[in-house]
Amino acid sequence: MNELNPVLYFLSEFVGTSLLLLLGCGVVANVVLAKTKGFAGGIIAIAWGWGLAVFVGVLASAYSGSILNPAVGVGLLVTGTITPVMFLIATIAEVLGGIFGAVLCWIVYKKHFDAEEDAGNKLGVFATGPAIRSYGLNFITEVIATFVLVFSILAFADFGDINVGVPGDLGPLSALPVALVVVAIGLSLGGPTGYAINPARDLGPRIAHAILPIPGKGSSDWAYSWVPIAGPLAGGALAGFASPVLLGFAS
Amino acid sequence: MNELNPVLYFLSEFVGTSLLLLLGCGVVANVVLAKTKGFAGGIIAIAWGWGLAVFVGVLASAYSGSILNPAVGVGLLVTGTITPVMFLIATIAEVLGGIFGAVLCWIVYKKHFDAEEDAGNKLGVFATGPAIRSYGLNFITEVIATFVLVFSILAFADFGDINVGVPGDLGPLSALPVALVVVAIGLSLGGPTGYAINPARDLGPRIAHAILPIPGKGSSDWAYSWVPIAGPLAGGALAGFASPVLLGFAS
Amino acid sequence: MNELNPVLYFLSEFVGTSLLLLLGCGVVANVVLAKTKGFAGGIIAIAWGWGLAVFVGVLASAYSGSILNPAVGVGLLVTGTITPVMFLIATIAEVLGGIFGAVLCWIVYKKHFDAEEDAGNKLGVFATGPAIRSYGLNFITEVIATFVLVFSILAFADFGDINVGVPGDLGPLSALPVALVVVAIGLSLGGPTGYAINPARDLGPRIAHAILPIPGKGSSDWAYSWVPIAGPLAGGALAGFASPVLLGFAS
Amino acid sequence: MNELNPVLYFLSEFVGTSLLLLLGCGVVANVVLAKTKGFAGGIIAIAWGWGLAVFVGVLASAYSGSILNPAVGVGLLVTGTITPVMFLIATIAEVLGGIFGAVLCWIVYKKHFDAEEDAGNKLGVFATGPAIRSYGLNFITEVIATFVLVFSILAFADFGDINVGVPGDLGPLSALPVALVVVAIGLSLGGPTGYAINPARDLGPRIAHAILPIPGKGSSDWAYSWVPIAGPLAGGALAGFASPVLLGFAS
Repeated sequence: MNELNPVLYFLSEFVGTSLLLLLGCGVVANVVLAKTKGFAGGIIAIAWGWGLAVFVGVLASAYSGSILNPAVGVGLLVTGTITPVMFLIATIAEVLGGIFGAVLCWIVYKKHFDAEEDAGNKLGVFATGPAIRSYGLNFITEVIATFVLVFSILAFADFGDINVGVPGDLGPLSALPVALVVVAIGLSLGGPTGYAINPARDLGPRIAHAILPIPGKGSSDWAYSWVPIAGPLAGGALAGFASPVLLGFAS
Repeated sequence: MNELNPVLYFLSEFVGTSLLLLLGCGVVANVVLAKTKGFAGGIIAIAWGWGLAVFVGVLASAYSGSILNPAVGVGLLVTGTITPVMFLIATIAEVLGGIFGAVLCWIVYKKHFDAEEDAGNKLGVFATGPAIRSYGLNFITEVIATFVLVFSILAFADFGDINVGVPGDLGPLSALPVALVVVAIGLSLGGPTGYAINPARDLGPRIAHAILPIPGKGSSDWAYSWVPIAGPLAGGALAGFASPVLLGFAS
Repeated sequence: MNELNPVLYFLSEFVGTSLLLLLGCGVVANVVLAKTKGFAGGIIAIAWGWGLAVFVGVLASAYSGSILNPAVGVGLLVTGTITPVMFLIATIAEVLGGIFGAVLCWIVYKKHFDAEEDAGNKLGVFATGPAIRSYGLNFITEVIATFVLVFSILAFADFGDINVGVPGDLGPLSALPVALVVVAIGLSLGGPTGYAINPARDLGPRIAHAILPIPGKGSSDWAYSWVPIAGPLAGGALAGFASPVLLGFAS
Repeated sequence: MNELNPVLYFLSEFVGTSLLLLLGCGVVANVVLAKTKGFAGGIIAIAWGWGLAVFVGVLASAYSGSILNPAVGVGLLVTGTITPVMFLIATIAEVLGGIFGAVLCWIVYKKHFDAEEDAGNKLGVFATGPAIRSYGLNFITEVIATFVLVFSILAFADFGDINVGVPGDLGPLSALPVALVVVAIGLSLGGPTGYAINPARDLGPRIAHAILPIPGKGSSDWAYSWVPIAGPLAGGALAGFASPVLLGFAS
């Protein structure tokens, strides 16, 4: 794997992010939509569901180093782990994968979308939204939560043997720490905004929501959509700049 | 372990699948049947219970490479990891193990089956069924969910050091990633059909339900039984064909 | 660690089982007793609590190979992993550790035992009891559940690199698979009897219940006490005899 | 990393403890405060949330050996793993990190603190408190719970390959056992006092509660504040003295 194939690199990020969103949107659908077998499963189901969605997505995209998230990509760009071209290819693949994964989730839960009466629940399967709307604080929440994600991932790379962003450098158990960090963020920092912490995770499915023929789907809430894009990108960049100092390896 | 003993190979798959179904049906019984200590434990208990049932089943069948599932077997057949003869022996062992494990579960929960009044709950311990019946969409849900399972397992084999299907190549922590993928699928894709994702997991216990003398057991719902067989087989085959391209190792 | 010191061997099993019962009885107290912070936490809290109690107990008794359970000891005796003298020393240490751990749990939850009105809940913190009393089926349930435990542990030893019963051969992550098997058994097979699967786990705390000055504590239910002793011992022995054949390493 | 840089050592403990408290207080806020997405998530969410908060904190402070807790520091001091100067620097960093992490948590959940009416719930996000007040028994509970934590950590160091307190000696999966021990303590011993088991975890956020301009915040309950300081320090020291004997490596 000495020379990267850009098509396979693109494909790897696309497949990984598709699986992430299929499973991630899936757990929300299972807990929220009418008549499912997981109805009312609560925050513990949501948090483990998203964490393990990351686990599967990371496994399936080892070829490209399992970035899956433009906010992680920004952090890896800042630390010089990936190049701007890799970042660009990955980001496009991630947004398209986000759309495709959300479409697959809609197919899986088609009958339950039809049976659901609340438009807010339908949108909630696809995109994040604030529990209490306050653009400034919602933005700060996403910055902080994403900082925790990207800072942790950069900590793996420097003190351990897990290198996110380095193609072909991940094995099955390597995906576990990233997954557990995402479970942690969901349980602890997901309360106010539903923890997008990934622009592709929010934008891709929101586009899917806008274009899919879902009966009674209501608004896609584009007014809020900049928060889960800008907040994670800022948090990821911040983690990239802060990590060389704060992790102690600048010594 | 250079030469495989076909009888032990058969036995290994039989034992592993028996344990899988004893524990898998067991967690449903614990959550669903009357007067159990785990009554109303919810989706989080179900998903961890099935995931850890796979964990135990994989541990106990390392001799045969822990296939435990004809849909996984199809994927391994397509990728050339196992031979048609191995597939055939394993599949027969898995269906028989599925019957035997379900019978053991019924013995464990005998008094609770007797105390349960709802026939649907009794069948639900053994076999999967749709939350909203729609053969076409239920089939597609099983295809997608099983694709995720088999695709993930094939990803382990190519980028990591865990080789499902390769006799004697698994250790205790190797069983963890497979288990976590099954927890993920349960939480995220189990909502519409109860995630059979394994023909032996559904057919074996359904046969057990049909033949066991359970008072007031009602129908075994054979009309639905093709979905959790055909869907997983299609999903497993699809994963087998797609993985060389989508995982990036065709380069 | 070439020569075992019998006093330290005893101490290791005593300490490990004390921690197991402190934490194991603790999670039941937290979920069941009045006014605790974990009240009504459900089966998922109970199952993880006991599983992680085993995790801590195994960690703390690596010197003696972390047996912690006479049913596991019987299995290791049958397979020749430990000697009869080791089994005897370990078993005495485990029962005494079980008493001591339960006493510590009572001290930790003293005010909540005082605030609890139901005598059955108080006994339930210490000892297991049947959801539906039926000595024959309760016994069979304990046999099957313990078979799963000991069979899994013997599977680690032969296909993996984790050797329960072999002094000094366990590291921190080695304790994880045993813990996960116990979570699995709790979720899947704990419904009818509360899964003793360990004579020391039940007898030790039951003795503690009988001798401690707990106001309004009611009966210690000695009529049932043989089930969680005889069932696990039978299940452990069965696993010891069956494993060489069923795990495929008799070839 | 042969020569430690005291500033980076301080920074490492400060960052790790900040993340610990941001996430740890965060999960309580998510489960307790009004209108969050994790409202009423229960003990299982709390216990995993705190355990994984430790996971992230340990990852991010590998430079300094991830002490994060003066009670762990006392244990490591007693066993000679760290020097008094390291202990002093770490403890100051941990208390300051505890304050800073709690402030971050308050910012993340600002709108939910404003929407919350119960002053006790607001304090509960920051500091621990007894379910039933009894200074003596509450103290003993904290001693025992912290003994379990520090004793387990010392067990890793001697039988495994994970050395808490040794700078640069931890990788991503090394953080998992510590996290699981904390989940265990939360589920099993958290019922009476909310398991501070760490003076910095309680004192830092309590100071933050006292100084932050939170509307309707009520008392900071300083009368109780000595319990979660003195109890953990005593438990940690006890574990340090007991471990050479009880873990069997005094032989």
